Amino acid sequence: MKVARFQIDGEISYGILDAAEQGDGIEIVELVADPIVAGYDTTGRRLRLEEVRLLAPVIPRSKVVCVGKNYADHIEEMRDVTGGETPEEPLLFLKPNTSVIGPGDAIVRPAISDRVEHEGELALVIGAIAKDVPEDEALKYVFGFTCANDVSARDLQLKDGQWTRGKSFDTFCPLGPVIETDLDLSDARIQTRVNGEIRQDGRTSQLIHSLAKIVAHASQAFTLLPGDVILTGTPAGVGTMVSGDVVEVEIEGIGILRNPVRDAGE
Amino acid sequence: MKVARFQIDGEISYGILDAAEQGDGIEIVELVADPIVAGYDTTGRRLRLEEVRLLAPVIPRSKVVCVGKNYADHIEEMRDVTGGETPEEPLLFLKPNTSVIGPGDAIVRPAISDRVEHEGELALVIGAIAKDVPEDEALKYVFGFTCANDVSARDLQLKDGQWTRGKSFDTFCPLGPVIETDLDLSDARIQTRVNGEIRQDGRTSQLIHSLAKIVAHASQAFTLLPGDVILTGTPAGVGTMVSGDVVEVEIEGIGILRNPVRDAGE
Repeated sequence: MKVARFQIDGEISYGILDAAEQGDGIEIVELVADPIVAGYDTTGRRLRLEEVRLLAPVIPRSKVVCVGKNYADHIEEMRDVTGGETPEEPLLFLKPNTSVIGPGDAIVRPAISDRVEHEGELALVIGAIAKDVPEDEALKYVFGFTCANDVSARDLQLKDGQWTRGKSFDTFCPLGPVIETDLDLSDARIQTRVNGEIRQDGRTSQLIHSLAKIVAHASQAFTLLPGDVILTGTPAGVGTMVSGDVVEVEIEGIGILRNPVRDAGE
Repeated sequence: MKVARFQIDGEISYGILDAAEQGDGIEIVELVADPIVAGYDTTGRRLRLEEVRLLAPVIPRSKVVCVGKNYADHIEEMRDVTGGETPEEPLLFLKPNTSVIGPGDAIVRPAISDRVEHEGELALVIGAIAKDVPEDEALKYVFGFTCANDVSARDLQLKDGQWTRGKSFDTFCPLGPVIETDLDLSDARIQTRVNGEIRQDGRTSQLIHSLAKIVAHASQAFTLLPGDVILTGTPAGVGTMVSGDVVEVEIEGIGILRNPVRDAGE
């Protein structure tokens, strides 16, 4: 099932995607409230996908957890920035919820960075309170999956050593377009394109630390709350984006997260 | 003015501290709502401080921002863990809001760390939306000041290189006991004691990067929201805490933040 958060006539609602009842196309079946906490009761209203504006499918109430260095080919390409070591355990950092934007929203390059890069990633959305969960039960706490872009000001990441600031600017965490709740995402193609050109092309089966391992490990460090989001790492091919670019993160079975890029002040 | 968040009869309220109307002692004048967003209208109820349970004076809706390496003597003592360099700009990292606890709540040492340390710090509480604010106006966005303990699993901080996990465990961000809104905190004594023994003893005038500089710099990276908290760094003297210890962070003009320490599972 594909869950969307959307805006129509100034109101924000949640819904699930469905084939149009008449003719071709996709419709949204409106839900009474956020299904992560309130289930799937519907309002009875159906809307054509084209009439609504899709928003980030979730705004974390607590945290966006990220995993660094989780694809071997990306670790190799980043040797000069982050060292070439493969972490024994998922290496965690945080982005603030103020960095989250939705599909179609602009990624804004801050004036203080000359090197803003894309990192297409599979993201997990947490559906239930999780603390110290074992690896073999960890995926039960996942509500679903979405596309993410762990946008990074690489020059500031390198300068600080700590990655937080370079990855936490407003607009640096595009999420969407929807949350897929049912598919097996353990071996999905994940591709990042800039202006249609393929930059990153991997499969989630190449993750060094599995989705279950990541959830279990993160839940050892902090209580995960419903609506928290975990970005699972990026494959090789990260690269810069400039004003006017359009960046797409596509994950097989989920959809395409598309965002334009502009400079601050434009 | 000293703002408190407290619990009585199962209900959570906000209030301001005042001298008792009759006799000695301190009373809380109850407020209608959180003064960070709703001002200072009172309910008319006055409670004795002893009758209530003080809670963390704020739960950030978005982020706890921390500044690393902001006292020269602490940079020197941490040379083996974080290198001895003084950052040109405030070095930022984040703690999740799930790490926040209040006065009297136990700091829980996770089983996977053998070295949990205290870091007494002055914390700022943001009162208004702040983005790209200039340094000379930055303090206008501060609602007030409180005591914080940037509890750190030093072994995990060192192992990961990225500081996030070691500093983000549940209970690793005690805040309180109150928010002081009016004092000049640019040169206040800040002391951390374990079981009454002085471990850290500094002054906020020793900060390498000033409070205004920190707010301005953080607001360049991300939008600060009302209720966000910024920890401003710790002076020398950090050290381990074990189960049964009681740790106190005292800042002149604010009060004493006191927390017992226990092991997970106890």
